[in-house]
Amino acid sequence: MKVLVVGGTGTIGAAVVDALRAEGHEVRTAERSGGDLQVDIRAPDSVRALLAQAGRVDAIVSCAGSGAWKPLAELTDDDFELTLHYKLMGQVNLARYGADVLADGGSVTLTSGVLSQEPVPGGAAISLVNAGLEGFARAAALEMPRGVRVNVVSPPWVSETLQAMGQDPSGGTPAADVARAYVDAVAGTYTGQVLDARTFA
Amino acid sequence: MKVLVVGGTGTIGAAVVDALRAEGHEVRTAERSGGDLQVDIRAPDSVRALLAQAGRVDAIVSCAGSGAWKPLAELTDDDFELTLHYKLMGQVNLARYGADVLADGGSVTLTSGVLSQEPVPGGAAISLVNAGLEGFARAAALEMPRGVRVNVVSPPWVSETLQAMGQDPSGGTPAADVARAYVDAVAGTYTGQVLDARTFA
Repeated sequence: MKVLVVGGTGTIGAAVVDALRAEGHEVRTAERSGGDLQVDIRAPDSVRALLAQAGRVDAIVSCAGSGAWKPLAELTDDDFELTLHYKLMGQVNLARYGADVLADGGSVTLTSGVLSQEPVPGGAAISLVNAGLEGFARAAALEMPRGVRVNVVSPPWVSETLQAMGQDPSGGTPAADVARAYVDAVAGTYTGQVLDARTFA
Repeated sequence: MKVLVVGGTGTIGAAVVDALRAEGHEVRTAERSGGDLQVDIRAPDSVRALLAQAGRVDAIVSCAGSGAWKPLAELTDDDFELTLHYKLMGQVNLARYGADVLADGGSVTLTSGVLSQEPVPGGAAISLVNAGLEGFARAAALEMPRGVRVNVVSPPWVSETLQAMGQDPSGGTPAADVARAYVDAVAGTYTGQVLDARTFA
């Protein structure tokens, strides 16, 4: 299958690209800089331009989007705006606009995260957008055209990320294991699902 | 307790005001027009001004905020912006800014809705914000100061609303029953919870 992976150079994204290629899929990556194609998912017009350039694909996978990570009392109105328009609407727009360019029976796979259901201090804006992405995917799946599927992968804390933060990596899941959830979302029949990547490890 | 109810004239809001008063609470209402105080929750400065005017209260209850209800393919970028800044951030900001004005051990109770987990066609933007509100409340509850609690009530379809839409009201829950969840959120010890109002009927 032809797969467009947005955010394919991050810890999870790179593992997803490797896993998809290992299964024989033809992968193109889109990044803010570098990658096969460029996109700033915070800008709706940039997302539209990316999809026009990518042409018909069988799957869009997003491992892209960030947000503000701060104590609740320090999160500003601007922090929420950034988070809403980056990890949340950036990915929602990939699904919305992607509906028109995906092949019949294609799929969109977005990324939320464990903070949706298992919050920690400092993650209020991220918990909001992760949960919002999951609510959107459940609903959008009911209305996608031509059999297009929509799912969200919810990654746990990733071992490589914990290690980079100077924490015990054994508390996390290796990125290569997390990537299996994305491969199954692309190749399987799921739709409207939140795939807890821990259960694919 | 002194309770500020934002959106106290809607179907659910009016029932919540009645139920709180019946329990002996001192209720003030805030509305876009009318009400004891005025607020446009879409505007952060209006929310700040409301809370400054309301002064110290024991509980803030929000039954306010709307969003775009349309087929997915017809939802525009502007529809998402409106929905994010009305039902979602309008209520999130009541909690964020409210943290500073609530009495010690006070509470914030926001409103999501059954579409968070049980989507229907036409509700993608609403499902997104309802789920986002729930994710925010779970996380924010970990960081509220001085024992302030945060919860979200998730109302089902309300009988009176179904009747107004020309549908069979027996498929819904009467607003007076839904209101019990809000009364328990204010008077109880819940925090970080999504209260399914059907279980209070």
